[in-house]
Amino acid sequence: MRKLYVIGIGAGDPDQVTMQAVKAMRQVEVFFVIGKGDDKSELVDVRTAILTEHMDRPYRVVEITDPPRDRTPADYQGVVEDWHDRRSALLEAAFAEAEGIGGILVWGDPSLYDSTLRMIERVLERGAEKFDYEVIPGITSAQALAARHRMVLHRIGEPVHITTGRRLRETGLRESALVMLDGECSFTEVPGDDVHIWWGAYLGMPDETLIEGPLRAVEARIVEERARLRAAKGWIMDIYLLRRDRPGNGSVRPVSVGGGR
Amino acid sequence: MRKLYVIGIGAGDPDQVTMQAVKAMRQVEVFFVIGKGDDKSELVDVRTAILTEHMDRPYRVVEITDPPRDRTPADYQGVVEDWHDRRSALLEAAFAEAEGIGGILVWGDPSLYDSTLRMIERVLERGAEKFDYEVIPGITSAQALAARHRMVLHRIGEPVHITTGRRLRETGLRESALVMLDGECSFTEVPGDDVHIWWGAYLGMPDETLIEGPLRAVEARIVEERARLRAAKGWIMDIYLLRRDRPGNGSVRPVSVGGGR
Repeated sequence: MRKLYVIGIGAGDPDQVTMQAVKAMRQVEVFFVIGKGDDKSELVDVRTAILTEHMDRPYRVVEITDPPRDRTPADYQGVVEDWHDRRSALLEAAFAEAEGIGGILVWGDPSLYDSTLRMIERVLERGAEKFDYEVIPGITSAQALAARHRMVLHRIGEPVHITTGRRLRETGLRESALVMLDGECSFTEVPGDDVHIWWGAYLGMPDETLIEGPLRAVEARIVEERARLRAAKGWIMDIYLLRRDRPGNGSVRPVSVGGGR
Repeated sequence: MRKLYVIGIGAGDPDQVTMQAVKAMRQVEVFFVIGKGDDKSELVDVRTAILTEHMDRPYRVVEITDPPRDRTPADYQGVVEDWHDRRSALLEAAFAEAEGIGGILVWGDPSLYDSTLRMIERVLERGAEKFDYEVIPGITSAQALAARHRMVLHRIGEPVHITTGRRLRETGLRESALVMLDGECSFTEVPGDDVHIWWGAYLGMPDETLIEGPLRAVEARIVEERARLRAAKGWIMDIYLLRRDRPGNGSVRPVSVGGGR
């Protein structure tokens, strides 16, 4: 049975790769790289640096260019499903052509807002390619954000919700919310003067930027900084935690933060 | 300024430690080990194995025995707060006595259901010990569970709630719930015939055990297996994901799983 490794490689800091990930990478003969066809060349550089540093024998790289996708559809789930179908067909074709133990490197962890596992299951469902696969967990941007802000993601005994900007706008803020995939600065739509935000962009990378404070006091600065960074680099990856203040409830002392590392 | 590293070392598999964690460990001259005073000797062994494998110079270990704690209090938050105060006093005394760059190794990640950061902030608030500290993120049991079950933690575009057994019993099941710290098998109290569970114990360790299936079909087996394992080993660490079925909504194909690795 052919083997495929799906390997989480962390949020952007090459040192966030685990020993387990390195050992799995060293089994791989051909890496399938699912690109977005855009210019996030810095991410490609980090991935290349990880492979260059840790691989101890030759390997091949097969690039798969992502099909285009409507980013603001009315039927969100339908569009995503269709997009996954088209990506799976491309992945299946790449699997059929390349030989040897396969590997797919995933930013963060394959279990959070990443479509690699769904694509692989679709390839298996199509039935033409047969293989076994193993998942290697990775550090997520949620952990990276928490570490850089030196915070606990929830209050004592309370939950934390990992959610999207879209969902935050729909359901409002409950307890602690860690928001990913928010291209629209949805935090500006959360009402109240008692909300705190811990925001981070390019976590673990040279341009890492952190902003933290009362939401109403810092939201304009985050919107501005996010737009500036995005324009300057051509892309942005960011994440934030929101929580309403509740004095004396074991919240960790905020740290002062700024741009750069 | 004295330096302290708070280092996440993963969920139990020594290979889940990151390169960043290894580099931080190698800066450390004295490790503070906050023990529970019980016989989770297997966890101590894993921690020792990590240090033995990665440290490249001599280091000291200072053990701090946890004060006792009421595990089923009426005033949950009050008891936890008081317990954190007593632990902080012990940590402060240990810091005062030991010299050099400090390190604390944390199972999983310091940002999730771990009290180390709150204790450190309390020590700083007390004002007697002054130091700077840095947090190194680690693989959590949430990622480890997802990897071993080869699953995505949420449905497409939906949230996942990381919560406790206590909270699950209080608020019921919404969307996808990842439940930690549940000594009471609270999943048995979730109503409905449409709930699926992905359960794992001792993730990444030799006794790793996985059970997955429709909740009503496998809950008795999980309760039984959990009690058997806990009795045999004297302790258990487990975690599970719950989600209601919704056919055709991009859920990943379940995999069949069993005990052992």
